This record gives sequence, structure tokens and C-alpha cells, in this order.
Amino acid sequence: MTTSVGLSPAPRAASRSGKAEKPLAARDLEPQERVDWLRLARSETVGPVTFYALLRRFGSAEAALDALPRLSRQARVATRQEAERELAAIERLGGRVLCRGEPLYPVTLAAVEDAPPVLTVLGRAEILSAPIVAVVGARSASANGRRLARELAAGLAEAGIIVASGMARGIDAAAHLGALAIGDGGTIAVVAGGADVVYPEENRGLYDAIRESGAIIAELPLDAEPQARHFPRRNRIISGISLGVVVVEAAAKSGSLITARYALEQGRDVFAVPGSPLDPRCRGCNDLLRNGATLTETAADIIGQLGPMVHDRAPAPVAAATQPRLKLRPPRPALAAPRPPVDGESALDLIVEHLGPSPVAVDELVRQCQLSAASVATLLLELELAGRIERHPGNLVSLR
Amino acid sequence: MTTSVGLSPAPRAASRSGKAEKPLAARDLEPQERVDWLRLARSETVGPVTFYALLRRFGSAEAALDALPRLSRQARVATRQEAERELAAIERLGGRVLCRGEPLYPVTLAAVEDAPPVLTVLGRAEILSAPIVAVVGARSASANGRRLARELAAGLAEAGIIVASGMARGIDAAAHLGALAIGDGGTIAVVAGGADVVYPEENRGLYDAIRESGAIIAELPLDAEPQARHFPRRNRIISGISLGVVVVEAAAKSGSLITARYALEQGRDVFAVPGSPLDPRCRGCNDLLRNGATLTETAADIIGQLGPMVHDRAPAPVAAATQPRLKLRPPRPALAAPRPPVDGESALDLIVEHLGPSPVAVDELVRQCQLSAASVATLLLELELAGRIERHPGNLVSLR
Repeated sequence: MTTSVGLSPAPRAASRSGKAEKPLAARDLEPQERVDWLRLARSETVGPVTFYALLRRFGSAEAALDALPRLSRQARVATRQEAERELAAIERLGGRVLCRGEPLYPVTLAAVEDAPPVLTVLGRAEILSAPIVAVVGARSASANGRRLARELAAGLAEAGIIVASGMARGIDAAAHLGALAIGDGGTIAVVAGGADVVYPEENRGLYDAIRESGAIIAELPLDAEPQARHFPRRNRIISGISLGVVVVEAAAKSGSLITARYALEQGRDVFAVPGSPLDPRCRGCNDLLRNGATLTETAADIIGQLGPMVHDRAPAPVAAATQPRLKLRPPRPALAAPRPPVDGESALDLIVEHLGPSPVAVDELVRQCQLSAASVATLLLELELAGRIERHPGNLVSLR
Repeated sequence: MTTSVGLSPAPRAASRSGKAEKPLAARDLEPQERVDWLRLARSETVGPVTFYALLRRFGSAEAALDALPRLSRQARVATRQEAERELAAIERLGGRVLCRGEPLYPVTLAAVEDAPPVLTVLGRAEILSAPIVAVVGARSASANGRRLARELAAGLAEAGIIVASGMARGIDAAAHLGALAIGDGGTIAVVAGGADVVYPEENRGLYDAIRESGAIIAELPLDAEPQARHFPRRNRIISGISLGVVVVEAAAKSGSLITARYALEQGRDVFAVPGSPLDPRCRGCNDLLRNGATLTETAADIIGQLGPMVHDRAPAPVAAATQPRLKLRPPRPALAAPRPPVDGESALDLIVEHLGPSPVAVDELVRQCQLSAASVATLLLELELAGRIERHPGNLVSLR
């Protein structure tokens, strides 16, 4: 119970698998480990970055849970009972929880630095291992935009690609419908609230259909109402599980463009459907094209561009996860084994002194403070749990 | 009389100017030389390539004319009288003949290997020396395509750029009109027949306006009726005089794409306006974008790309050039608020939301808006009468 489950970038995982570069353990967690993961993930002030930092520091979720109260009085730790209740409720809905690194957890998402430690899945979890392409766009879409989304999604589904979207009105809904129309195309709705919360209400029929023949996935616990601040994070999961993101009708500065930006950060292909300059709903797509997105008129444009990736992963379902073909992001160098700092208090002050509101690289801190990487990691964890610093992707931190 | 006028690729021109790479003599021909050039250019079987070969071989048009009967019994040589008659007729129309290499002959065209040795110009020949951008496209253009052509041309004219096109129906005519609407913007119509031949007849008013404040240019002699085989050559002159070619609405395999291909061959920038994949009139433009054309929504996109070229050549004859204004797109006119009689405000809003500049089938609207066919018909009629939508063959409608 105290062994690491081997998630990147935990150094034990690397040594355990004997392959320093292999980021994933590719095994199912033991039931008790899953409860611990869920407890840690649901504990207050523990976001994904902190979650992985704790896992690295303490070697397992269980050990991290033991240490958490000592590290921070603010962090309310989720109880075993709460986690078990959540798992039981998910099971009653026919769903399951996937932890990062488990075989069914999407490999492309697992490669994202701040991927959700725990995902709730309702429906057919196995389709998460197939090649996935996201089709997203404006809520207030035109009839033509909706038709294009439907046709593109149907074309992708016919080619054996699973279509992911956000189940919003407009383009998202049309994309899901287009995929559902094709045999057992299957489609994945990534929702911003709990997996059992239908939003918007008008999409209840669609929700039921997706849950029946596709999958609903959520980072938040059941019953959580989606709020505006959850949407960027949801968009990041949409791009994270996908090989590419197709944007159909998006106004300038719209949420779909945020998804496209995440896709670029995550090394995914970005596709955009061109449209008339007279239509403000096309401005975002045209901007993407201007910046190098692949011009997309039919599903063939997408499949042609993704080509090898789609075909390499084609006979996918579950087995593919064990052999990730996508070189998406170089694994981060393993951190040295953590060790408590020699001179705790003053080292902590030193770090705080070097921090400010602008994010700074942890490596830079190590260099400038002339402390060991392990000491800095431990001190940052303390600061984080005390709510004094914020983590940012790219191993950056800032003072709150 | 026997000296070369120094046209590239004539080797004597190079040695005479002392600069091997300078292709142009940049002087006006003597009246007699001009007659000789016109005779040679109008002689049978003497196309541009032969013309320059003869000039290189014999050193002058006069010497080439002397030699021509000996070289070919087939080549009927145009008589001095015929040439003088043509020149006099052009003069009576207030026009002039420009020979390649003369100061007013467009330098960009002169750099094209098979540029016309002789151009007839009616109107303001001096605008040929300003920076020129071509705006071309489909004859059977949509209302939105025409509007875009007009707005792009107006934006270019405001920045002191002369707009060239082919005076065809549709996009060409709209581009000329857009430029004419701006102060003394000026615009150049490159016609496939004689400079005095109005084609198509419906553009007579436009022709007169261009001849008045812009220029009509032609490679063929006065009175020549344009024929299908002349059009590619005309398109080549359009791209030849231009720094860049903008394509607005072009079906696959259309004439505008030929102009774009010439532009690429001639090293010009190619610009294309994106459009809906559902509109066949946009397919050519989207193909150009896929192949690297610059995505163009407003004149600023064109000016931004041409930037240095436009400004290097800026002290143009047109006053506006000194203060290019980059605010190119006039705000869209506010839509009128028509009174929906039956289904109320929200049904009308719903329909408008589902419409865009690309035509959509009325059936599709009925299905997607979940309104009765009768209601949709009534609401569309209202929108039509309010000038907000356009009807297209096949029971399609689009937002204006």
C-alpha cells in the first residue's frame, strides 16, 4: 500500500518498470489504492499539480493522506467514507473511476502534465482507448455550422475515430449527434460538472444517448454543478484526450479558441473550418487558419493530416494503452528522492523571498536559492498546502 | 533607329545600360520607333516571345521588320499605314500606346518574360505606375461575395493602392465599383478584346466610369472582339501588373484560379477569401488557402502582407497613398427590426441565428428550428422584405 503506483514523473515508477522514460504503470489500481487516490484528489487545496507533487514526495496516495494534516492545517482531507460513498454511487450509475495511468485512462490525456488524477466515466469506458478527435465550436452556431459539425463527426466516426466534444448547445451537440448517427460510432462528452449532471437541460436526450452508446467523462465529483470557472479545465481535458481538435464556427475570443490553444500546448493538431469574413461566427476559425491550423472542409482533411496516428492506433480498444505510440511531450526528468531540508525555516524564507506574483520556473528557484532540488520540492509543497503559492503548468510557481 | 531599346531579356540592353541585371531602358520611344513596335507586334505569327526574339536578333523593331519577309513568307507584316491608323484612332479616344520598357509601362508587368510588347491604354495611363493589386473572382458570385470584393477594393483604394480586375460580371465588377467609390481611387480594367470594346455589354456604365477616372488596358488592337482563347492571356496581364492577386469566391477549376496560378509563376502574392465548405463558390479559394495563399478577411490582411512593397512604391500618383488608412471594414449596417406577425420575436431570432452568409436550405432551417414550414416561410418573407436575407436557387437562403 505504500508503493508508488508509478505515475510519471514519480521516480519510483521509472525504476519499477525498469524503463526510465516510460511514464505509465499501465496497470489497474488495487481497490484500496483507488479509494486513496479519490480521497487525495477530493481533498481541499489538492489540485492535479499538488496531487502529483504529493505522490512524488510520499510515494503513494496513502502516505500522502497520512502526511497531509501535518503539512497543512488548511487542507481538509476527504474521508475514506466519503470516497467509498462516491465510488458506490458511480457504480450504481453503471460507471467507474479511472485513475491516471490505469490501462483505460486515455494515454494522450495521461501525457498531459496536469491531467486529472481521477476521471469519472459513465457509459462505455473502453472507447476512451480508441483514437479520439474533438469537434468543438460556437453555442450560437448557424444551421450550416451545425450541419458541417454533424457531417465532419459522421465522417470521423465512419473512419473508426471517436468524436469528443463538450455537449454544449450548437456545434458540440451537432458533433455528438453526427457521431451517434453512425453505427456504433460512439462519442465522448466531457462535461464541466459531475458526470451525472445534465447541462444544458435541453440536451437531456443527447446525454442519455451518449451515456447509452458512448461515454460521459468528468473530472468533478457526481452532483457538482458546472460553473463558469470549470469550463477552461473541461476544455483542457477535451483537447487532452484527443489527437486533434477541429473548430467549427468560433467567434473571436471564444471558448473554442481556448480549447485550440490547449491543443497546441499539448502538441495536438488543430483543424479549423473556414467561413465567410462577413460572419462573426467564423472569425475565430479564420484566425486559427491564419495561424497555421489545417484548413478543413471534410473529414478526409482531418484523417489525411492525422493519418499515421489514426492508423497506428486503429485496432485500438484497450490493448493500445500499453503501447503508447504518440510522442507527445518529453517526459520530465525524474526528481531526486525527496529529503527534508537541513535548515528548514531559513530555507523556506529564502524561497519565499525569491518568489513573486509572476510564475517562475522551479529549476530557476533551485539555481538561485542554491538549495537541492529535493529541498526546494519539499518546501514548495509546504507552501502550496499552506495556500501561499500557486502551481502552473510547465513546473512554474508563483506567490499567491 | 537601329539601337536596341533595352528590353529584357535582350542581351544588348544589358550591355548598353552597363548593368547586366537591369531589364528596362526606362525611356519613351521615339514616335517612329513606336510605329515600328506596333507594326511588329501586329504582324501575323509574331507573338510576344517571337517579338522579343526578333528584337534581340536584329537589335531594333525597324531592322526586324526589314528582315521579317525574308525569314517567313507566312508572316504578313503589318503596314506602316495600318499602324499609324491604329495610333491615330487610339489618340482620338484620348488613349495611348505603351511599349514595354517605357516609363509608364507597368514595371511589374515588364518583368514578366512574355509581357505584351505593346499595350493600349484608355484613361489615366499614369495610374499604371502606382502599386496595383488585383481583385478577381467568380462571375456568378453571391451577394456576400460581391460585397466582400467591394469592401476589399475600397480598403485597398483608401490605402492608395490601385485595384485591377477583368471587368467581368460578379466579383470583377464589384471590385471595380468598390475602388471607384473611394475619392480618386482609380481602378484598372484589363480587357480581353480591344480597349474600346465593352464586354459584357451590361457593364457599359462601369466601363465609362473606369475610362473616366481609371484606365482600360488591352493587348489586342481596337475593335477586337474578346474570344474565349483570349481570356487566359488577359488573366496573365492582370496578375502581371499586380503585386498580388486576391481571389474572392472561385469555384474549383475556375478562371480565377488560373490568374492565381499565373500570379504564383510570376512571383506575386496570392490572397484568398475563405468561405463555407458548403458553398461550391468558395471551394477554389479554400483550395488556394490550403496551398498557402494568404487568408484574407479585410484589406488590412493584404496591405500587411505586401507592406514593404506597397510602401516602397508609395509616392504614387494617387494622393491618398501618403496616408494609408487601415480601418478598412465599415461597420455592418444595423439590421432593421421587422415585426414578426405570427411566431413572435423569439421565432424570428431563432431563424436569424440559424442563418449566415452561406446559403442554407429552407428545409434544413425548418428541421433545425423546429418550427412549422409555414411559419418559417412567413418569417423568411418578412426577413426578405426587410432586405435581411437573400434567396438562392434550390430554395436556399442566406443572411445578407
